Amino acid sequence: MSILSLETSIRVRYADTDKMGIVYNSVYLVYFEVGRTELMRAHNLPYTEFEKAGYHLPLIEAKVIYKKAAYYDDFLIVNARLDTEKITARLQFDYKIERNGELIAEGYTIHSFMNSTTKRAVKPPEIFLRALGLNN
Amino acid sequence: MSILSLETSIRVRYADTDKMGIVYNSVYLVYFEVGRTELMRAHNLPYTEFEKAGYHLPLIEAKVIYKKAAYYDDFLIVNARLDTEKITARLQFDYKIERNGELIAEGYTIHSFMNSTTKRAVKPPEIFLRALGLNN
Amino acid sequence: MSILSLETSIRVRYADTDKMGIVYNSVYLVYFEVGRTELMRAHNLPYTEFEKAGYHLPLIEAKVIYKKAAYYDDFLIVNARLDTEKITARLQFDYKIERNGELIAEGYTIHSFMNSTTKRAVKPPEIFLRALGLNN
Amino acid sequence: MSILSLETSIRVRYADTDKMGIVYNSVYLVYFEVGRTELMRAHNLPYTEFEKAGYHLPLIEAKVIYKKAAYYDDFLIVNARLDTEKITARLQFDYKIERNGELIAEGYTIHSFMNSTTKRAVKPPEIFLRALGLNN
Repeated sequence: MSILSLETSIRVRYADTDKMGIVYNSVYLVYFEVGRTELMRAHNLPYTEFEKAGYHLPLIEAKVIYKKAAYYDDFLIVNARLDTEKITARLQFDYKIERNGELIAEGYTIHSFMNSTTKRAVKPPEIFLRALGLNN
Repeated sequence: MSILSLETSIRVRYADTDKMGIVYNSVYLVYFEVGRTELMRAHNLPYTEFEKAGYHLPLIEAKVIYKKAAYYDDFLIVNARLDTEKITARLQFDYKIERNGELIAEGYTIHSFMNSTTKRAVKPPEIFLRALGLNN
Repeated sequence: MSILSLETSIRVRYADTDKMGIVYNSVYLVYFEVGRTELMRAHNLPYTEFEKAGYHLPLIEAKVIYKKAAYYDDFLIVNARLDTEKITARLQFDYKIERNGELIAEGYTIHSFMNSTTKRAVKPPEIFLRALGLNN
Repeated sequence: MSILSLETSIRVRYADTDKMGIVYNSVYLVYFEVGRTELMRAHNLPYTEFEKAGYHLPLIEAKVIYKKAAYYDDFLIVNARLDTEKITARLQFDYKIERNGELIAEGYTIHSFMNSTTKRAVKPPEIFLRALGLNN
């Protein structure tokens, strides 16, 4: 099975809301980050370790589809997924955010692998492939 | 000419950056908001007036393509565009963010027209069409 | 015992950091909010219920003392405290943020009780005093 | 005259507001940053130059007094001040935020001078004193 997946919970903060009374649109990308971070941690590669090894994962594309409004104090589930068969020079995470089984938002982020010293894009580093069991 | 367009400048704040030393990914959606707000203001329909008339423009979709990193204190130009011929029950704004003519990011946001009392989607309200000279 | 107290954990997000590599200064006030929210929930008065009853708790003063930097992915403990004997027309919460027992930041927020319809300051509402067992 | 002072304008963004319909409490610290940045730029020492010279100005204390609510699209004036006679190992900026002459918030931030390589506090660096004409 090549799909890694993790569910993380998020409590909506007052700071996340706007005057429409709902979660402000850009905040979903932060929720995506939380899901992505916990997915990596759960699969043997905390992002802090990845950075210590000299890499970053800057975004090259992001998309959010807003299905339902989320509200203050909502208890949301972020489902983050990574299809390891699709890892090339790019890395795509897919996300669904739900509240009590109802889809609130979905989307994806696409990242490049960047050497943090040279600031250049690199192919998937060993530390990354090894953590995911892909280095053979 | 059915394309409305406006350029707005934004100075990158320290608060906008992250530990990678660049503007954090979600912040571009805030920059898009600034461009959209000023586009509406420049074309006779400040968003505050639109809300006072009883409407919101919640997002139903957003996409960002990150081309180059933006840095603290960068002086960015947000170009926001609205093709008025494409206005249906949905409203799409397109954006380009540049630094000294170099493309930093581009993307779009798609909005519905919402009655702020009923919280329901409505067709483009008169106040909106009139401001854009589309109400004939 | 008139001191209500609660410890809440917070995981530092990438979005919280700035180019100095540490948590940006304003984010501590958001962490304070999380501590305050969970303190109220734990003591019988979720803030959502308080708002449904027609009240807000806008800030009238806030102070943060920064002791040590906090970093990405840090697991922080927010200790929020409320001395119920000191409740007047104003309400003060005190906070300490720690990482492995080390003090990272401390501070307070002072709030007024506001009627959300009239937008006027009011004395502590019954729903608030009752939840804290102070209404005799 | 040893008081440096600068007025900067800020347009309140939708992203800055919360479900109370007002600017969220932590955002004022970001507005303070904007005022501080422009004050330094206006007095010959852009913060980017200060960082390039190897220094940071991390906060060690911040206080905000909230006087009146600020709203979406408000055009605010941030008045930032620096009393150069009071510069020691610490640096204090004072702020007032106004809307049409009405005081919205005031406060201060206190900073240390930090060597960005050693991460240690240092005394006021030459580049800083020279820019302010204090290096005699």
